[in-house]
Amino acid sequence: MKTYQELYALVEQQITSMQHNKQPAELYEPVGYMLSLGGKRLRPVLVLMGCEVFDDGIEKALPAALAVEVFHNFTLVHDDIMDKADIRRGKPTVHKKWNETIAILSGDLMMIKAIDLLCETPTQQLKALIEVFNTTAAEVCEGQQWDMNFETMPDVSQAQYIHMITLKTAVLLGGSLKLGALIGGASSQDANHLYEFGKNIGIAFQIQDDILDSFGDGDKVGKKIGGDIAANKKTLLLIEAMQLASKEDKTLLQNWLNHSSTEEKINGVLALYHKYDVRGKAEQLKQHYLNEAFHQLNQISVEANRTQPLKETALALMERMS
Amino acid sequence: MKTYQELYALVEQQITSMQHNKQPAELYEPVGYMLSLGGKRLRPVLVLMGCEVFDDGIEKALPAALAVEVFHNFTLVHDDIMDKADIRRGKPTVHKKWNETIAILSGDLMMIKAIDLLCETPTQQLKALIEVFNTTAAEVCEGQQWDMNFETMPDVSQAQYIHMITLKTAVLLGGSLKLGALIGGASSQDANHLYEFGKNIGIAFQIQDDILDSFGDGDKVGKKIGGDIAANKKTLLLIEAMQLASKEDKTLLQNWLNHSSTEEKINGVLALYHKYDVRGKAEQLKQHYLNEAFHQLNQISVEANRTQPLKETALALMERMS
Repeated sequence: MKTYQELYALVEQQITSMQHNKQPAELYEPVGYMLSLGGKRLRPVLVLMGCEVFDDGIEKALPAALAVEVFHNFTLVHDDIMDKADIRRGKPTVHKKWNETIAILSGDLMMIKAIDLLCETPTQQLKALIEVFNTTAAEVCEGQQWDMNFETMPDVSQAQYIHMITLKTAVLLGGSLKLGALIGGASSQDANHLYEFGKNIGIAFQIQDDILDSFGDGDKVGKKIGGDIAANKKTLLLIEAMQLASKEDKTLLQNWLNHSSTEEKINGVLALYHKYDVRGKAEQLKQHYLNEAFHQLNQISVEANRTQPLKETALALMERMS
Repeated sequence: MKTYQELYALVEQQITSMQHNKQPAELYEPVGYMLSLGGKRLRPVLVLMGCEVFDDGIEKALPAALAVEVFHNFTLVHDDIMDKADIRRGKPTVHKKWNETIAILSGDLMMIKAIDLLCETPTQQLKALIEVFNTTAAEVCEGQQWDMNFETMPDVSQAQYIHMITLKTAVLLGGSLKLGALIGGASSQDANHLYEFGKNIGIAFQIQDDILDSFGDGDKVGKKIGGDIAANKKTLLLIEAMQLASKEDKTLLQNWLNHSSTEEKINGVLALYHKYDVRGKAEQLKQHYLNEAFHQLNQISVEANRTQPLKETALALMERMS
């Protein structure tokens, strides 16, 4: 079984060898630029790992792996426009380096290219693959829309929040694994177990992201602590705090959110997070999804060693920066 | 053989019965809104006509017909953002009625939905259909990018212009017909003839659009004459005029383009168009592409009556507003 590092290297090599020198250059250069910005390549690696659970011949899953990575980067290009983000991985975003119309159009092209790549899969069941891909793609759009809706919604429930992160982040991890599994010849039952594993890992990962933003070790996390609080982001922690707080503390929390000094605001909100142990509650919820993930993985009808790389990947993701 | 009107009614009925009530509403409502704005439904009708050339059972081409219409509307939603267009068919554009982020995201969703619809085609050759669809889709993006590039390019040649309108407009007419032909069981040779027919009709149609904008009967065309001139749009007429004009007249033309009064500008440019008979040249070029279109159509190995609706549609398009 191949390790994350080995599969990462394989994906990276494939991405580097992709050609983006077609005309007009304004349309194709941003595609190459975006794909060259790097990252963990988690999703394509999951496609390959999903395939290898059932079949040693992972080369046939490479086009689908690239399809998922190109799709993911398409969502990043468009999300960066919507979020007015100027920087990604320390480099200017596409709409900053070029302009917004080029970012819209080259993003559109990446979506088309993703389907092209998926269609290169040597398979008799292309329709099933596209169904998984498209269902996931539509859900990612839905998740992004919910996330934007949350910004102006006065109250967001825990269930709504979990639904949003499931769509925006988790289903693509599940979908990547399911594509790999189907290409590897998995039964639909096993493919669904793998999907659920990925989805639940994704939810747990996103919850951890929220926790680390408020309680992480800034140096290890690699970003300033309290960014979510400063931006009034409706994270799981804030949603929990709003739900648990007494009437007085709710007012206090609301006042802190409107406070002008960022440092005082972060400290004020954190004090209330501590008072109601929202971190403990969030950790519990994270553990719930992790347990569910491994429960799903253990249902798959293969020898335990075949799912070993997935277990290690999941644990490495969870240990990251904590 | 079914007439345009019959096929139009069939398409319209299908579009009306599509459901767009999923959540989040901000994402799905714009899809229904956009599709309800109407139009000639030319592309889906061409899919059905393309199928009927080879097979009476056109129902199986309906999903592909809808796919093409949804794709076309996706490009309109994103183009309207890029062109900062506020009004389409007398109604506010999606980014005006909602906002830009919703327009980007619901456009993305329409692209995904288009592929979904295409995959509903009952066929053994889904891969071939997606290849035609995706090649065309990528070319439409390229055409839009060239069109935007032209705005700031000092010189555009006639060949570059024809290449741009081919990509932006014509290939989707060709691609629609080819999809229908393949679904109807055409040989790849016949499918390509039909593609070339559609592509050449599309080029001729676009040239006519340029001619009518400067020389049409305003009441019949339904818009003000001279809009392209007022906007300094690099139409075929302007490109021809720039190429044919003497050095002095070139300077004069450039001066008119920079003139502050729109009415004087239009009249000044039109005078030079008359002097160099750019209309006659454009009509010649249009006729060249029309001839090529019918030449391609006549190569198809079916009885003449099977291509009759296509001939009538092409001629009706050309007689429109002239």
